[in-house]
Amino acid sequence: MRLVTLTTDFGLSDPFVGIMKGVIASRAPEATIVDVTHGVPPQDVVAGALVLRHAVPYFPAGAVHVAVVDPGVGTARRPLCVETDHGVLVGPDNGLLSLAAGPTDVRRIVHLTDERLFLSPRSGTFDGRDVFAPVAAALVAGTPPRALGAEVPEMERLALREPLRRGRTIEGEVVYVDHFGNLITNVAGGMMGRDAGIRIGETRLRGPAPSYAAVPPGELVAVVGSWGLLEIAVRNGSASARLGASKGERVVVDDAA
Amino acid sequence: MRLVTLTTDFGLSDPFVGIMKGVIASRAPEATIVDVTHGVPPQDVVAGALVLRHAVPYFPAGAVHVAVVDPGVGTARRPLCVETDHGVLVGPDNGLLSLAAGPTDVRRIVHLTDERLFLSPRSGTFDGRDVFAPVAAALVAGTPPRALGAEVPEMERLALREPLRRGRTIEGEVVYVDHFGNLITNVAGGMMGRDAGIRIGETRLRGPAPSYAAVPPGELVAVVGSWGLLEIAVRNGSASARLGASKGERVVVDDAA
Amino acid sequence: MRLVTLTTDFGLSDPFVGIMKGVIASRAPEATIVDVTHGVPPQDVVAGALVLRHAVPYFPAGAVHVAVVDPGVGTARRPLCVETDHGVLVGPDNGLLSLAAGPTDVRRIVHLTDERLFLSPRSGTFDGRDVFAPVAAALVAGTPPRALGAEVPEMERLALREPLRRGRTIEGEVVYVDHFGNLITNVAGGMMGRDAGIRIGETRLRGPAPSYAAVPPGELVAVVGSWGLLEIAVRNGSASARLGASKGERVVVDDAA
Repeated sequence: MRLVTLTTDFGLSDPFVGIMKGVIASRAPEATIVDVTHGVPPQDVVAGALVLRHAVPYFPAGAVHVAVVDPGVGTARRPLCVETDHGVLVGPDNGLLSLAAGPTDVRRIVHLTDERLFLSPRSGTFDGRDVFAPVAAALVAGTPPRALGAEVPEMERLALREPLRRGRTIEGEVVYVDHFGNLITNVAGGMMGRDAGIRIGETRLRGPAPSYAAVPPGELVAVVGSWGLLEIAVRNGSASARLGASKGERVVVDDAA
Repeated sequence: MRLVTLTTDFGLSDPFVGIMKGVIASRAPEATIVDVTHGVPPQDVVAGALVLRHAVPYFPAGAVHVAVVDPGVGTARRPLCVETDHGVLVGPDNGLLSLAAGPTDVRRIVHLTDERLFLSPRSGTFDGRDVFAPVAAALVAGTPPRALGAEVPEMERLALREPLRRGRTIEGEVVYVDHFGNLITNVAGGMMGRDAGIRIGETRLRGPAPSYAAVPPGELVAVVGSWGLLEIAVRNGSASARLGASKGERVVVDDAA
Repeated sequence: MRLVTLTTDFGLSDPFVGIMKGVIASRAPEATIVDVTHGVPPQDVVAGALVLRHAVPYFPAGAVHVAVVDPGVGTARRPLCVETDHGVLVGPDNGLLSLAAGPTDVRRIVHLTDERLFLSPRSGTFDGRDVFAPVAAALVAGTPPRALGAEVPEMERLALREPLRRGRTIEGEVVYVDHFGNLITNVAGGMMGRDAGIRIGETRLRGPAPSYAAVPPGELVAVVGSWGLLEIAVRNGSASARLGASKGERVVVDDAA
């Protein structure tokens, strides 16, 4: 597989992403590189893990997914390569890879110990360039994951708070706020009927509606978004700005299905 | 043609653009994908249409141009494929495609009704992933537009305000503000001579000048920009910030050619 | 070499970068285009030159590097193509290319005078589209640099302030602030020992530490970053915000090695 994806918190104002691509292109000229996003909030491992979980399934099986949200860069935290049913994940062992690699999907976890692959000298601040890009290039060039280091039994896993169900009430929360200000919750669309009561702060909605445009422009609406999750939006506006709500905001669904 | 371009209002902080690329790469691995921009202001169909109009002519004839600025996603607004002399446009039928597809350029308008191509289940919020990316992949893979749905006679067309000419005076307006704060108007450069009087708010300029650098740093200057349109700029600065001006601001040209 | 990189101050909110890619794709369909960054601060030639210096070495030798931070666009400043040991640089003659092209690396400097290659009509505001993209395409298609214009002996070179050494004290300054708010200085890591004293404003640090994570979250730390330069950071935070510091801020190293 020639396809490499990149997911980082590096932003695009610096050359860091470009430098990673230079390393990959130097070592695996046949690679095709696709950006998932570089807009993960700095050091927000949970956001990066959610992004990866919701993006990986849309890429060809076997693609190499490099993810770098890495506050522990330069420490003893392990660099990993994780083979799953959907693709090969490469990144730090801090939970970032764990939501895209469900326990039953994981085929092999490799601690990347073959330092001969890494750039030398290796800096203490940029394993994306020095470790993960070279490993991605090696994978594209045909090196099997098991040749990259020692197989290990486990990796760090994020403990996401799951929505709490009490009878017909579900207590969830906002887990991601997108570019439009849509508030994406951890409540799966399948958990509720078409006319559930939805509370966020002082706001009461009924739904989910079939689309943002089910309400007039400027009004709040609840939908099941593209990640299959309950989402609070403002049609043609920002629910985050309107409600002053961000990650962690409590969302309650009454009359759940 | 293997080339697919993407123009959206999705921004780059989320994985949405990456997910569209994943869908295209999964179904048409031979596609080459180029971003036009994902920085169209949210839901600003007119800005997206202007961007597309000024970008499409610089791409190879026959390229597939996917555009998604789509406040009506999930409603009955039609998804379209529009064949023109310059390329194949794919996006919602809300006027977004209309400035890049002049009435005399259009060869065929197809209402994308072949749902077998779409991702299933199809969400109510992300036709970029579920409809337009799969259609782009099908086009790259050689499916002719006419096989994608039913030919229709018309599409939504934007009614842009044209500059108003009264004798030797032209009343136009700012239609686009770029990253540098340059104020791009709807007045074509060919409508004025080299020493026209230009008024915006309380400001009086003469021009257009041959380049931004025709004035000292920090000063206002009028030029004909790369879109062939009159543009008000500050050399090495932001005219938008300096004048407090944005889209819709009135611009008057006296002594027009 | 099919690889073209792009480094500009165009940002990503407009279609300008996409348009350059369209021109390259039209004239050299075999080109692979990689963004270094388009987030150079507007008109900041020094920042662009630093970015290019630190990115070019990570790309394959012979790649074509197009850089456009060009406040003099439309004037008599020369468009250049510079062959170096590492690659071929294309951009305006304003110092932008000079840090990536050390005096001993330069093989040939060509003033791009062959206007037949340029887009016509050529605008006065967008040589990225009209001059530099076509030239990059010509290089990818195999045109040798010497065929693009007249060889010239010199180009503009930036006179960067070097750190000042007085005995065991080094006076440097912040030369680049990255997306994370890390303050990158002009003091090379090799100039100091592992326990130097570092002063910035009222702050005193010892270091450099091996990684950001050598201190508790939220604390200031000095490291040698991925550019081999002394860098002041806040673990999981922004040193720029914490210290109110930006480019030009004085940094003093005592007890230098």
